[in-house]
Amino acid sequence: MGGKVLLVLYRGGEHAEQEARLLGSLENELGIRKFIEDNGYELVSTDDKDPEGESAVDKELQDAEIVITTPFFPAYITKERIAKAPKLKMAITAGVGSDHVDLNAANERKITVTEVTGSNVVSVAEHVVMTMLVLVRNFVAAHEQAMDGGWDIAGIAKQAFDLEDKVISTIGAGRIGYRVLQRLVAFNPKKLMYYDYQDLPSEAIEQLKQASKILNGKDLIVERVEKLEDLVSQSDIVTVNCPLHESTKGLINKELLSKFKDGAWLVNTARGAICVAEDVADAVKSGKLRGYGGDVWYPQPAPKDHPWRSFRNPYGAGNAMTPHVSGTTLDAQARYAAGVKNILESYFTGKFDYRPQDVIVIDGEYATKAYGQRK
Amino acid sequence: MGGKVLLVLYRGGEHAEQEARLLGSLENELGIRKFIEDNGYELVSTDDKDPEGESAVDKELQDAEIVITTPFFPAYITKERIAKAPKLKMAITAGVGSDHVDLNAANERKITVTEVTGSNVVSVAEHVVMTMLVLVRNFVAAHEQAMDGGWDIAGIAKQAFDLEDKVISTIGAGRIGYRVLQRLVAFNPKKLMYYDYQDLPSEAIEQLKQASKILNGKDLIVERVEKLEDLVSQSDIVTVNCPLHESTKGLINKELLSKFKDGAWLVNTARGAICVAEDVADAVKSGKLRGYGGDVWYPQPAPKDHPWRSFRNPYGAGNAMTPHVSGTTLDAQARYAAGVKNILESYFTGKFDYRPQDVIVIDGEYATKAYGQRK
Repeated sequence: MGGKVLLVLYRGGEHAEQEARLLGSLENELGIRKFIEDNGYELVSTDDKDPEGESAVDKELQDAEIVITTPFFPAYITKERIAKAPKLKMAITAGVGSDHVDLNAANERKITVTEVTGSNVVSVAEHVVMTMLVLVRNFVAAHEQAMDGGWDIAGIAKQAFDLEDKVISTIGAGRIGYRVLQRLVAFNPKKLMYYDYQDLPSEAIEQLKQASKILNGKDLIVERVEKLEDLVSQSDIVTVNCPLHESTKGLINKELLSKFKDGAWLVNTARGAICVAEDVADAVKSGKLRGYGGDVWYPQPAPKDHPWRSFRNPYGAGNAMTPHVSGTTLDAQARYAAGVKNILESYFTGKFDYRPQDVIVIDGEYATKAYGQRK
Repeated sequence: MGGKVLLVLYRGGEHAEQEARLLGSLENELGIRKFIEDNGYELVSTDDKDPEGESAVDKELQDAEIVITTPFFPAYITKERIAKAPKLKMAITAGVGSDHVDLNAANERKITVTEVTGSNVVSVAEHVVMTMLVLVRNFVAAHEQAMDGGWDIAGIAKQAFDLEDKVISTIGAGRIGYRVLQRLVAFNPKKLMYYDYQDLPSEAIEQLKQASKILNGKDLIVERVEKLEDLVSQSDIVTVNCPLHESTKGLINKELLSKFKDGAWLVNTARGAICVAEDVADAVKSGKLRGYGGDVWYPQPAPKDHPWRSFRNPYGAGNAMTPHVSGTTLDAQARYAAGVKNILESYFTGKFDYRPQDVIVIDGEYATKAYGQRK
């Protein structure tokens, strides 16, 4: 007889009734209740995760063997919560990005942390490119004008540009960052740059160059930049696609922002805490950044007075924020629900034959360099 | 001594003061006043174009030799206005799309009609892809939630999908439509389809297929469809990229909309009158279409009660309209201002050596098949 699986998901309410494909909602439980119960485990689902110490998550975690959470509505699996969960053996992220789990604390207790790598990389990469287009072309102000009954073309156009022929950079060129670069090639950029702890494989670079040759009839420059200051000072658009860990927390702060090109755009769909929230909002308000967009915040749900909800540039535009939805399209939900089931199956059968790329920490060690490269 | 050049542009106001690159505004006059006056012509600029019969355009056109207008803020050069303009020899569109000129009336009077082909095809193609992403990923509802202080992931996600693996079709595969297809390849579509009066050149098809092979590692299906009903009934997303003329006016109407897949998305950045406005709004309101977006309206400026300003799908989303700005980014303005100058130079020098692709009607005949293919 197995133990308890605790599943923390956002509530779907009427939306879950209206759309059966909303697998990632509390009501639809990733579609895995029967599978879990058939394996002799108990499933407890909740969306009651806050405040820490007083929520259903705190109560249920005390005798749970597995906890499943999402990045969209994260139950923070802190050191304190882990200390009070003696039976906990595994934390699964239904999606990608396990920074809401204290990985060092998990390692000390030899708790396995897994996620469904790849399940929403395409969804997030699309969100990145969409957000760039929305910012660069000044969509939000234009759409607001359409709704409000206005027709002031000049007011929109004075801040509207083409994505073509811009210098675009990604901080992080992993599974998401590279997919962003792949999509950008078709928009005929002036130059693509990236910042990462390792070179992209030469085949990956070659693929981008060949695609540019075919689609744009020109040689594309793809450059790895060693110093972050050199990256941001040359870029019209910067996008953040790296994991959150000790060395990336607060990476985009007042000092780095001062090195950006005047009027650049910044897109972050990685994690909110990689940016210093007030510093970014100030940069947009002053016009240093022409706009900022993305869908990650800290904490989540974002408080009503989070500065990213309301910032505007001096011309009243430049905000392209969304709640954390980029990785939870219905297409992505189908993929991460299936991925969680696969991880559970590996666990239940005792084979522990996880896909290597899904394992973040195991047996007390970091399994992936992206998270592990910390001081 | 030359005659009068009448230039009709949208007013920039404070925006023109704030942004010198806003060449397409009344105040900045495409940057060509000196050039025109140096050639011995008089330049009169205005934004007073309505109502017909009583505006400055009506007054000034009576002795004008050349009229320059834009699609974004069109002075409709009607049969009646042409009849009252005996000296008129040329109508130039600063941009692309000369349907605001009565081409048959121009032909009768042997007035040359030119436009700056290519000046904003990239700008418009980017707007099309942006609008698809905005609709398919449900950006507008998500952004409104971010601004309004909400956090209801399920309410957004239930209508959010990936662009990847969708069947996408264009009505019209000319300079803009083809550029849309080029950009879409990088998003790994299930299938691309097009409807046009002629086949795409085989090299153009081959280019799309090769790019797909490289970027997506798979063979891409690109299909020309003979019957419009067959196109829309198979498509998740349809985009309109054909000129407005007698056979495309009202093409997207109640009957054709009934043949669309349930929950499809429609994007139109071509011309508003290609769609029957009420029929499209009704299709979104009923949920037949999940969303409609684009930036063209009829008439322009759109009246405050135009149905496209306010339509919403049954879940309160699905509207991605903007005023007509897609082709007037600052990057595009630089290109079409330069193109107008080139056309004027060909005229002033008496060489009349226009770029063939810029000529819509000349010497009493249609020079381009796209406009000429009418009954």
